[in-house]
Amino acid sequence: MRIDIITCVPAMFSGTIDQSILKRAADKGLAEIHVHDLRDFAINKHNQIDDYAFGGGAGMVLMIEPIDKCITKLKSERAYDEVIYMSPDGETLSQGVSNELSLKKNIILLCGHYKGVDERVREHLATREISIGDYVLTGGELAAAVVADSVIRLLPGVMNDETSALTDSFQDDLIAPPVYTRPAEYNNWKVPDVLTSGHQAKIEAWRFEQQVQRTKAKRPDLLKNPDSED
Amino acid sequence: MRIDIITCVPAMFSGTIDQSILKRAADKGLAEIHVHDLRDFAINKHNQIDDYAFGGGAGMVLMIEPIDKCITKLKSERAYDEVIYMSPDGETLSQGVSNELSLKKNIILLCGHYKGVDERVREHLATREISIGDYVLTGGELAAAVVADSVIRLLPGVMNDETSALTDSFQDDLIAPPVYTRPAEYNNWKVPDVLTSGHQAKIEAWRFEQQVQRTKAKRPDLLKNPDSED
Repeated sequence: MRIDIITCVPAMFSGTIDQSILKRAADKGLAEIHVHDLRDFAINKHNQIDDYAFGGGAGMVLMIEPIDKCITKLKSERAYDEVIYMSPDGETLSQGVSNELSLKKNIILLCGHYKGVDERVREHLATREISIGDYVLTGGELAAAVVADSVIRLLPGVMNDETSALTDSFQDDLIAPPVYTRPAEYNNWKVPDVLTSGHQAKIEAWRFEQQVQRTKAKRPDLLKNPDSED
Repeated sequence: MRIDIITCVPAMFSGTIDQSILKRAADKGLAEIHVHDLRDFAINKHNQIDDYAFGGGAGMVLMIEPIDKCITKLKSERAYDEVIYMSPDGETLSQGVSNELSLKKNIILLCGHYKGVDERVREHLATREISIGDYVLTGGELAAAVVADSVIRLLPGVMNDETSALTDSFQDDLIAPPVYTRPAEYNNWKVPDVLTSGHQAKIEAWRFEQQVQRTKAKRPDLLKNPDSED
């Protein structure tokens, strides 16, 4: 899988791309992430990529021309499944969306900044808009990093343990069960006896019960049929 | 405001903290962000901070002891309003939560990694759990960066234009209106005439109508009284 990120703050990705899962996926040849600096496509010698909003108002707007040039260049090199604009009013990211995106071959993530991008970018150049949640960020950079992380960790071979992602929250519409590690007692706080019992069937039953109980308590909306219990 | 981030991958924050709004807020003396490496509180010479889960299963679990030591040290230096564990099954971040957190003085953001933290951390050390959305990430680092960004940009004086944050999506339960900038025509794609009319009252009316229309179309759930229009 290949992800191309278009941004006016490329340095924001240094920590995320050079570290953690994204680096590991790149090292294994399972994913490529390329960050493109919008200023390389600026409209003049002053490196201009943004301007005031027509009609007035606070905040700068990213211009269409540099974005169009960058996307056009990328599209001339390969076909893209999606050109995704990161926007707080886009489709909300969910584990289902991440699963779906993990099956794509090439995607572009376009990061807005300041007041956002010229609306014509959204009308004519983006194929999809994704939000990571109902809150506003300084730019789309962290949102793009979140999408990249949530998607790339799902690619086969990226995580050390293939089964690890399958036991995460949301993959089965249940919150993950609580986990404990050594020491079995700390500050008089003890690990539940069942987990140190060595009785695997009881452990699995306890974990499933915890998942259902927690989901009912914290996120009943995730349970499609909250009245039908197993 | 001061934010202390506890993580086992401190390098993930290099790009976000040294750039963008967080850097600007720090330079202005309006916010401090301190990143603490959990390995500095490791339990042995092997820098151990994680271990296998009791009861078996894939994925490593962050141990309670290093986390407790780090939090205890921080608490000995100042009082904290919240110790927030970043977790996919926590309270979902929203603009309202960000607004609320922006009024706090000192908060700790604890990042899980791998399979998460020993449950006793959540039971006894965390005062609150926050999720940035219904998807799983490799760790809590990006989530903590998202919280820091969404909160710090709200602090008075951080953004260049005080009014900019107030016109963002979600601040008034409406999606932001579309924005356009120069050129007025690009690829035969034109800016709406009203925005270049110079008639400010008409522009404001058009923007408000766009906000209501878009919110109805994209996010009707945000409208508390979708039937009552102004």
